[in-house]
Amino acid sequence: MRNFDQFSITQAVLERIANAPDARTRQISEALVRHLHDFIREVRPTQQEREQGIAFLTDTGHMCTGTRQEFILLSDTLGVSMLVDAINHDHQKAVTESTVLGPFYVEGPPEMACGTDISGGLPGEPMYAWGTVTDPDGLPLRDVIVDVWHSDEDGYYDVQHEEDGTVARARFRTDDQGRFHFWSIKPAAYPIPHDGPVGKMLEAQGRHPWRPAHVHFMIDAPGYEKLVTHVFVAGDVYLDSDAVFGVKDSLICDFASHPPGTAPDGRTLDRSWCEFTYDFRLGPASRAASRAA
Amino acid sequence: MRNFDQFSITQAVLERIANAPDARTRQISEALVRHLHDFIREVRPTQQEREQGIAFLTDTGHMCTGTRQEFILLSDTLGVSMLVDAINHDHQKAVTESTVLGPFYVEGPPEMACGTDISGGLPGEPMYAWGTVTDPDGLPLRDVIVDVWHSDEDGYYDVQHEEDGTVARARFRTDDQGRFHFWSIKPAAYPIPHDGPVGKMLEAQGRHPWRPAHVHFMIDAPGYEKLVTHVFVAGDVYLDSDAVFGVKDSLICDFASHPPGTAPDGRTLDRSWCEFTYDFRLGPASRAASRAA
Ligand SMILES: [Fe+2]
Ligand SMILES: [Fe+2]
Repeated sequence: MRNFDQFSITQAVLERIANAPDARTRQISEALVRHLHDFIREVRPTQQEREQGIAFLTDTGHMCTGTRQEFILLSDTLGVSMLVDAINHDHQKAVTESTVLGPFYVEGPPEMACGTDISGGLPGEPMYAWGTVTDPDGLPLRDVIVDVWHSDEDGYYDVQHEEDGTVARARFRTDDQGRFHFWSIKPAAYPIPHDGPVGKMLEAQGRHPWRPAHVHFMIDAPGYEKLVTHVFVAGDVYLDSDAVFGVKDSLICDFASHPPGTAPDGRTLDRSWCEFTYDFRLGPASRAASRAA
Repeated sequence: MRNFDQFSITQAVLERIANAPDARTRQISEALVRHLHDFIREVRPTQQEREQGIAFLTDTGHMCTGTRQEFILLSDTLGVSMLVDAINHDHQKAVTESTVLGPFYVEGPPEMACGTDISGGLPGEPMYAWGTVTDPDGLPLRDVIVDVWHSDEDGYYDVQHEEDGTVARARFRTDDQGRFHFWSIKPAAYPIPHDGPVGKMLEAQGRHPWRPAHVHFMIDAPGYEKLVTHVFVAGDVYLDSDAVFGVKDSLICDFASHPPGTAPDGRTLDRSWCEFTYDFRLGPASRAASRAA
């Protein structure tokens, strides 16, 4: 176990981890070493480039706080998040498609009564959102928690603002017919946070940091596969160049504009407002379980 | 640019970075995406495993401070550092072999007169070190800076102690005949810092964190290739299982023990002491330059 050259070093590392007690840890570690070494042998980094790589990872780690997850941004922008998503979801027509979680989900959002306006008084076009949660056959699922979060009209999430406070973020519970509805404001397209190492990477790669406007949904019903997805605003200029590769046609939705007047839930609006609806179909939990096995 | 599956996502990311302005950035980015996606497709991580990966990288970043470089430890323990070293040094017999820099180098150590005892009064067996710096033909190189750093008898570097202060770390300058010499204490084998994410990884991989005892040298002479290397203590129990794969036979040196008495430089010792000598041969700078081109 000495005097390794650029080929024998790989075998040496693999032999060193061959006795990892957990088989899955061993499998992941071995694959990581093989692919990482192949990458290094292909690009043949100089010592200075290796130092730049170490500095990039270190800066990325230092950028992470309770409300900023730079490694998720890195995973998202390198297409890794959507790749893992694709591996874990063999698309079936009867089940709503998934997409990236993104870095802005916050654990334990407040539960609100259906119909609540979660915009917290932010400026923006009022948005009425409603829909259902069903099984693959369209049978309604009652008492299911629907997590919702989205950006404001400037493209920022509440956690990106200095002030504390949950805004444009809540959870609702479906009624007996699997329905939910709420008010908020229409989200805007936004650049992912690009004042850190990932932003520098995107610039160096000749890429823009923008995502098309969307509303995040996460729906986790007992006995069903957890759904993490977005509803995208139809017509957005970034639908074909999402910085994180998350757009699927089945998730694009018309956000219909309405003149001032009375909304379906009886709310009177003295300005124009918009509306979208989406019916979420959850797959059976066995799909996820069988893949993990 | 929508609706990617687990194969088309890779091409989508590659197309997105195809216009990176700098050719080398494009080359490294493309290779990274290909190998990273291949790794993901091979191991098929669950969403939970992806989150564990993000958490591991985040914890590794948060562990990094001015005196602790966890990503270097990661690079070292995965064999990446020695692989990059091997790529950058086609071994030629007449030139001293290189090995890992490691995480304990500190920029700008104090320059000391040859013969200085750099142990700072630490307990341990006194060690007399001497040698020369020459070109590949053995012609002495004068006025060359020789950086030295090593662990104490408990296996710790000065930067790992709470107290400030440079100990067992200095730079010397070769004399007209390319010679240097200094006193310190004999270093011990040590576990790399393993109270962080990399330590957890080693444990999960069924590996020990130990390195055989060694003295670090860095020699950077104008017109010559910078040499980063160690001198290892012959007989160390970890020579064949160095946690960072850094051992080369040509770098192992007998640390001869002597009874109390007078050392070659006239110092009188009332206890036993040890001595090693090494002649460093630097390669021409053109080797490094031609590889970078
Ligand atoms: Fe988002
Ligand atoms: Fe060391």
